[in-house]
Amino acid sequence: METAGELAPSARILLGPGPSNVHPRVLKTLSTPLVGHLDPEFLRVMEETKALLRFVFQTKNALTLPISGTGSAGMEACLVNLIEPGDEVIVGVNGVFGTRMVDIVERCGAKAITMEVPWGNVFTPNHLQDALNSCHRPKLVALVHAETSTGAWQPLEEIAPLVHQAGALFVVDAVTSLGGCPLQIDAWGIDACYSGTQKCLSCPPGLAPVTFNQAALDVIHERKTKVQSWYLDLTMIEKYWGEERVYHHTAPVSMNYALREALRLIQEEGLEARFRRHQRNHMALAAGLNALGLPLAAQEGHRLWMLNSVTIPPGIDDAAARRQLLENYNIEIGAGLGPLRGKIWRIGLMGESSTRSNVLLALSALEEILQKQGYRVTPGAGVGAAQAVYAAA
Amino acid sequence: METAGELAPSARILLGPGPSNVHPRVLKTLSTPLVGHLDPEFLRVMEETKALLRFVFQTKNALTLPISGTGSAGMEACLVNLIEPGDEVIVGVNGVFGTRMVDIVERCGAKAITMEVPWGNVFTPNHLQDALNSCHRPKLVALVHAETSTGAWQPLEEIAPLVHQAGALFVVDAVTSLGGCPLQIDAWGIDACYSGTQKCLSCPPGLAPVTFNQAALDVIHERKTKVQSWYLDLTMIEKYWGEERVYHHTAPVSMNYALREALRLIQEEGLEARFRRHQRNHMALAAGLNALGLPLAAQEGHRLWMLNSVTIPPGIDDAAARRQLLENYNIEIGAGLGPLRGKIWRIGLMGESSTRSNVLLALSALEEILQKQGYRVTPGAGVGAAQAVYAAA
Repeated sequence: METAGELAPSARILLGPGPSNVHPRVLKTLSTPLVGHLDPEFLRVMEETKALLRFVFQTKNALTLPISGTGSAGMEACLVNLIEPGDEVIVGVNGVFGTRMVDIVERCGAKAITMEVPWGNVFTPNHLQDALNSCHRPKLVALVHAETSTGAWQPLEEIAPLVHQAGALFVVDAVTSLGGCPLQIDAWGIDACYSGTQKCLSCPPGLAPVTFNQAALDVIHERKTKVQSWYLDLTMIEKYWGEERVYHHTAPVSMNYALREALRLIQEEGLEARFRRHQRNHMALAAGLNALGLPLAAQEGHRLWMLNSVTIPPGIDDAAARRQLLENYNIEIGAGLGPLRGKIWRIGLMGESSTRSNVLLALSALEEILQKQGYRVTPGAGVGAAQAVYAAA
Repeated sequence: METAGELAPSARILLGPGPSNVHPRVLKTLSTPLVGHLDPEFLRVMEETKALLRFVFQTKNALTLPISGTGSAGMEACLVNLIEPGDEVIVGVNGVFGTRMVDIVERCGAKAITMEVPWGNVFTPNHLQDALNSCHRPKLVALVHAETSTGAWQPLEEIAPLVHQAGALFVVDAVTSLGGCPLQIDAWGIDACYSGTQKCLSCPPGLAPVTFNQAALDVIHERKTKVQSWYLDLTMIEKYWGEERVYHHTAPVSMNYALREALRLIQEEGLEARFRRHQRNHMALAAGLNALGLPLAAQEGHRLWMLNSVTIPPGIDDAAARRQLLENYNIEIGAGLGPLRGKIWRIGLMGESSTRSNVLLALSALEEILQKQGYRVTPGAGVGAAQAVYAAA
């Protein structure tokens, strides 16, 4: 076997759809020697992490904890615990992650009723009302708050009352939004929500924070069938993370250390300040991209602060441009997914990656790379437009 | 909210059922800044990790990779991918983890046919032949190689031919054995196998190495139904970890860095030397425990090197003794699980934790704690017996 040498990765600036850059304090925390997962000291870490997660989720939900898998495991955990075979589930499909939810709903033996709008657009209360009218007794409605595949921001506050009027639960995918823009689980009436650690929480990937309110918990406790996943069965996980501390699996100790530290950093910055930072850097990047003639692709008025989808100009070689950004500038941006492959780039400004320096560098680098491919632009136009936004802020 | 302070855990000596202690090089590697999960540099890490896993599994299986969850996710991944509703599955139940497999088999809508022997004992080819005779057409036979709940070591070589004669697949739980005692996937005819990172690999918990041979892969590719778990669906995961690199979930980058480094350390030590180290430290600990009048609980001749289950003497307070070990000596050992709660202790000597120093310290500490509880023992008897084993080695 060929010998694998000492790990020596390049120092990347992570401006893709995640992972985002990780604060040195979180990296340092990862190297902390482990205690056992049932050690009283780790139980305290678990309690502190739950409290910190309640803070970022803006909830009092007792069942708020990190699932021991990535964001997709969080999606699956929410769906398999709440759904039983034969249930009707309404899913908003306007990108990759709504599509993924439909797949999981069907694997649960449930009936998925899809609402669809073009990728990059979002759903209105009217869309939902039509879907509710079209089905018999929906068990839940699932929407993506921040569609990472399109850069579209889905408003939630006006949706929740309609969902509850229909007697359904409201499930929200906040993988990319949590910690980067307002999300209020309790005030907005969200019954269950999942996220990931590697986006605006700026922790490495590997854990999926979830939160369930009492109504969702009641549905889980009143199931007629066992949850189809043993690993994601919340009736057992809630006892492992609850006061009983009943052994289920072995929690990823180091990753939980890291999450706790990433959440402490968020607490220190403050949610409001963090959101304003994400908004400001998005505004600056958007102005710069606009000046470069690169329009944002998501629906106007519904653009995410942490994930900017950009239409690739005609004649530009998508893969070559991304490769040059990576090789010459150490900058990672994301490709389009599915039907948007080759049509958009996805520029993430998430958590630690959302900085003024990164905005200015990304605009400069993009300008240089586009010009090399024969695209004409006034030198410095992108950076200048961004600087104007910062100056006005 | 109460403020969580800077993380400052005690420096534990982890002699429980896992996690084991982690080598400083692995801890240091965890703090490496991240690259994106689709970065060419991470793709190289993935390839190197697969090759290193093939080395520790002793296999040429192409589909050898770490699942993005803990060992239990590995168990679920093996079962949900190979089993369809209505299948007959033979499971050996002689501890917690066989019981867990039965639970998962039933959640798949399959029929579990259990073989049972008392906890701490193991299965003979005759046991299996009886079980095979009792069922119609078994899809697979699942056994636990190293039962972490009892300390029993299950021989596998004579089992595999019987399984294959019956037209079934042989699935093995190697969560605790991988990297600590011989395990030869190809030579022994194991079709699918899963493990965890936090036992004898001495990497933090969070990943589950799995390996599938062509026969197992054929079964997966010929399924009539979709795998019930999206997150653990190997038809998609094999494309993410394969040459296509089709996006599935976001791999836990830092944990994969750590696993790669832990595997490099194993390669440097050599498998044979590592096994001998585990065996020698087990022999010394067993001799010391014997001298203290603490007999090993698992079946004679079938005792694990990495997990020693010890009968707690009458009159000894289980919880108090473990608490004193933790508080006064910083030593973690494991409690008994299920029917063995209060009856045994589980002393792990896994990976980095399997050292002569830890054996001598554990014996000294146990002796002091037992004497405080009124248990009579010749001072130094345990350490002396262990030293004699090392001297003879």
